[in-house]
Amino acid sequence: MEKKYIYKRVTLNDVAAEAGVSAITVSRTIRAPTMVSAGVRKKVQAAIDLLGYVPDQAASALASERTNVVGLLVPSLANSVFSDVLRGVYDVIEGSGLSVQIGNFRYSPSKEENLLRTFLRQRPAGLIVAGIDQTEAAHALLKSAPCPVVQIMDVSDAPIDLMIGFSHYDGAVEGTQHLIEEGYERPGFLGARMDPRSQARLAGFTAEAQARGVYDPNRVITTTHPSSVGIGGQLLSDLLAQAPDTDAVFCNNDDLAAGALFEAERRGINVPRDLGICGFNDLEMSRHLNPAITSVATPRYEVGAGAMTLLRDAIADRAAIGTPQIRLGVQLMKRGSTKRG
Amino acid sequence: MEKKYIYKRVTLNDVAAEAGVSAITVSRTIRAPTMVSAGVRKKVQAAIDLLGYVPDQAASALASERTNVVGLLVPSLANSVFSDVLRGVYDVIEGSGLSVQIGNFRYSPSKEENLLRTFLRQRPAGLIVAGIDQTEAAHALLKSAPCPVVQIMDVSDAPIDLMIGFSHYDGAVEGTQHLIEEGYERPGFLGARMDPRSQARLAGFTAEAQARGVYDPNRVITTTHPSSVGIGGQLLSDLLAQAPDTDAVFCNNDDLAAGALFEAERRGINVPRDLGICGFNDLEMSRHLNPAITSVATPRYEVGAGAMTLLRDAIADRAAIGTPQIRLGVQLMKRGSTKRG
Repeated sequence: MEKKYIYKRVTLNDVAAEAGVSAITVSRTIRAPTMVSAGVRKKVQAAIDLLGYVPDQAASALASERTNVVGLLVPSLANSVFSDVLRGVYDVIEGSGLSVQIGNFRYSPSKEENLLRTFLRQRPAGLIVAGIDQTEAAHALLKSAPCPVVQIMDVSDAPIDLMIGFSHYDGAVEGTQHLIEEGYERPGFLGARMDPRSQARLAGFTAEAQARGVYDPNRVITTTHPSSVGIGGQLLSDLLAQAPDTDAVFCNNDDLAAGALFEAERRGINVPRDLGICGFNDLEMSRHLNPAITSVATPRYEVGAGAMTLLRDAIADRAAIGTPQIRLGVQLMKRGSTKRG
Repeated sequence: MEKKYIYKRVTLNDVAAEAGVSAITVSRTIRAPTMVSAGVRKKVQAAIDLLGYVPDQAASALASERTNVVGLLVPSLANSVFSDVLRGVYDVIEGSGLSVQIGNFRYSPSKEENLLRTFLRQRPAGLIVAGIDQTEAAHALLKSAPCPVVQIMDVSDAPIDLMIGFSHYDGAVEGTQHLIEEGYERPGFLGARMDPRSQARLAGFTAEAQARGVYDPNRVITTTHPSSVGIGGQLLSDLLAQAPDTDAVFCNNDDLAAGALFEAERRGINVPRDLGICGFNDLEMSRHLNPAITSVATPRYEVGAGAMTLLRDAIADRAAIGTPQIRLGVQLMKRGSTKRG
């Protein structure tokens, strides 16, 4: 189903037609599922899932109205990456007459789907969603959402509607390449959380290390635990226990990189001579450590500000702005932690 | 004017009575100020300011209705202290039927006033505001707001309505006392931003250092620049240029403390032997540094969750919850950076 720019809302009749039942049966299935047969329930549910239908709370008379609320779905409220995005969103929204409602799905795809349904029932003016890895059901909901949708933080060739982000894969390739060019021969990877964007960074590291003939799966240490400075130290300890001759680490983010640096300090490992460390995101702290940490700088504020600008323009006149997919660049900040020469 | 629990809205008639003019004159003064004399404008404006009157956007028929939106006014979206509060707010609001609208006033009192007026026009279900240091005009607006108001992050004996926070002064006293008890004799203070809560920390440091006979104004270095790890290093450099024999620093927050530690490292100053460092807030990073940084742990998440709980209960039944002023404790986390013994 292609997304139409007219943001036509999926109706009860659309679901009825798809399911091959009457509209009243669809309505009954939603309101009193025990009053219809299991077979009908199954058919109607399948049609609802396929079309991304969201039952409406408000009266049908209001069917064409939208609020001035922008829904912003984020996987976390606990890290500084998110707060930079948020700052960009709020800087642009000021004075626009729009307001933001935040939903935190805590990296849970099912929670993201539920929040999305809740938001859609409230007829948002627009939606901003993190990443490109929505579930099939969430994808269908977004495709048929009666408002502009902006996917942020990542890029792909198949946007749902609007998109602004950067390539996590390319950033990791660049960082890994730099480590190898500085003369490190046995690089490893430290990763926490391992959400889809972290996976893309791991894929970039793996591809580049393989291309250069230095890939060793024993040097890849990841955890699904949330990322932190403390976890960075633990992951480096685990890596060195498993592959003691590792001479560099590409870290999924700067918290891990800082934790790895502090752990190396405790072990008397000289950074950068005996261990090179490269981070990701380029947090403020990284350039003040001893040594300063090499990191892939990401345009987090720009993603937030750019997404809100796209959305504001799309809400004003969707057709006028076409289908921009904005791919922002990342920049490797070379510093002392990888300066072997 | 005492705050009434019935949240009676200040009306045009109240303003007219206060100004000693007719309601139609007040209305005209607001809509077409050039049509009334300067004297009338002045009288009406004074009455509006005194009573905290907010002209209403919506029709008067809706005068008693409130939305389900909670306004949250914060001074910054750029630091992790705020994101912890936000996380608490969102954890409690989930499933409550309420939603949050954030206003970032960027530490500008006039911006806070304007945001407050904007929020009040939208008939919020409740308001959460940071700190206890509102301007007189903002104070009047909050006193007469037709909804519950929670002041967060600080405590005072004169709450506008509800209040949950902790004492920045007491936390600083405890940290300073610890430095002195560990044998440091020439403690200094590093502070950035210097918002009212930072000022309270400085006051606590000053009082305790004076009481112990070790206060020296030359050892107090502050800046109005936003706080960061980089600024922490600069402030320590400035302090050591001005008072080279300083043997300990109480830092306004952990970013400054980390920056001071990294700068000490660069200068070959041994922490804790030659320089003790105590931070504030106890960020995750602090316990993983070498040495780990002593810090005053603050209940940021608990403030956010507690404020939203108070507000949710007050929205349901204001009279039932009385006037709790919740004073949360802070806790000094003693670590290596002050362990002189």
